[in-house]
Amino acid sequence: MMRTASTTRYFRPDPVPDDVIYRVLDNARFAPSGGNRQGWRVVVVKDAETRKKLAGMYMEVWEPYEEQIRAAATTQQRQRAIDRTSEFARSVDQIPVHLLVCADLSTLLVTDAELSRQSIVGGASVYTFVQNIILACRNEGLGIALTTLLCRIEDQVEELLGMPDGVGLAAFMPLGYPDPERLVTKTSRRPVEEFAFRESFGGQPLGVSS
Amino acid sequence: MMRTASTTRYFRPDPVPDDVIYRVLDNARFAPSGGNRQGWRVVVVKDAETRKKLAGMYMEVWEPYEEQIRAAATTQQRQRAIDRTSEFARSVDQIPVHLLVCADLSTLLVTDAELSRQSIVGGASVYTFVQNIILACRNEGLGIALTTLLCRIEDQVEELLGMPDGVGLAAFMPLGYPDPERLVTKTSRRPVEEFAFRESFGGQPLGVSS
Repeated sequence: MMRTASTTRYFRPDPVPDDVIYRVLDNARFAPSGGNRQGWRVVVVKDAETRKKLAGMYMEVWEPYEEQIRAAATTQQRQRAIDRTSEFARSVDQIPVHLLVCADLSTLLVTDAELSRQSIVGGASVYTFVQNIILACRNEGLGIALTTLLCRIEDQVEELLGMPDGVGLAAFMPLGYPDPERLVTKTSRRPVEEFAFRESFGGQPLGVSS
Repeated sequence: MMRTASTTRYFRPDPVPDDVIYRVLDNARFAPSGGNRQGWRVVVVKDAETRKKLAGMYMEVWEPYEEQIRAAATTQQRQRAIDRTSEFARSVDQIPVHLLVCADLSTLLVTDAELSRQSIVGGASVYTFVQNIILACRNEGLGIALTTLLCRIEDQVEELLGMPDGVGLAAFMPLGYPDPERLVTKTSRRPVEEFAFRESFGGQPLGVSS
């Protein structure tokens, strides 16, 4: 199931029952978190007006970003991937459920906060939960997309949804039943040998036969 | 399976075959990542000397942290949880495999990097993969623990494992077959109603019957 839980970009407009969304979150909540503090919070948006506003905000960030990545796209394959994401971006208001996954920042122990590089550990106790949501959706026959572009204008989302200070937006995840005519049938990833090493970074690749 | 993939803290010393670790990573790699850039990298450490060094580094961060959280622990339940983690910390060198999950920072689009709050989005394209590792381990009968304390002294880990500049340590994950005498049988999490709201943050809780 893990191998086939690819990002859904085309959805049917059919509503998603609350009990299905509940089951997704009821399974996802078993994710690990630092000190078992479970700092994740979720806003489940179905209201059409609110979804329209969120879709507008999404486009506000997507459009300049699209321009930038199109300029950098050197292959037809990459251009087509951008076409698909662009079509998705323009349909966000039509996707029946918007999940907004937030994190109570006071629950996070960010062990790389003092390093000179970009911090990433703040996500350790929330994107584990996010991945569980993705897999739990797959299990219910739902499709979902993980996006983070809206974080760039978090203040607007905060105002719309009444997020308090000290809560950060981690992900904007539109979900619904996938359009059966436009299912992704193949998820492309690099093989293990290209990212896993034995004993040291850049060491012998981990392979099956070696 | 998601509901029972709890953190393992007690392991058998038995070795874990490479093909099992390979299968875990071969499933985990289907996680989503921004632009499908798959910036995760994994070092699989089995060498006893290297594990001993990593265990020593872990203790260096754990000990002052333990002191701090013990002082703040107000319940017996919390003290017992710290006892278990402490026992785990002291046994790290005996755990047969150490996975070090790293991120190529150049692949990350960190949309909250410019906000005034702690950044978390840098983890979006790596902890999804980490959660897949946890679930894939469960599927193989392996136990695993997700820890991030070592990130605090990343420079020492970098030197030991030859991590290049531009690569960050995201997680230190000891893994092996769980000790059957000390399996965790119950994973405690707050119910959906306590973290999921309808339409706005702090709005009506998402419940099954409502």
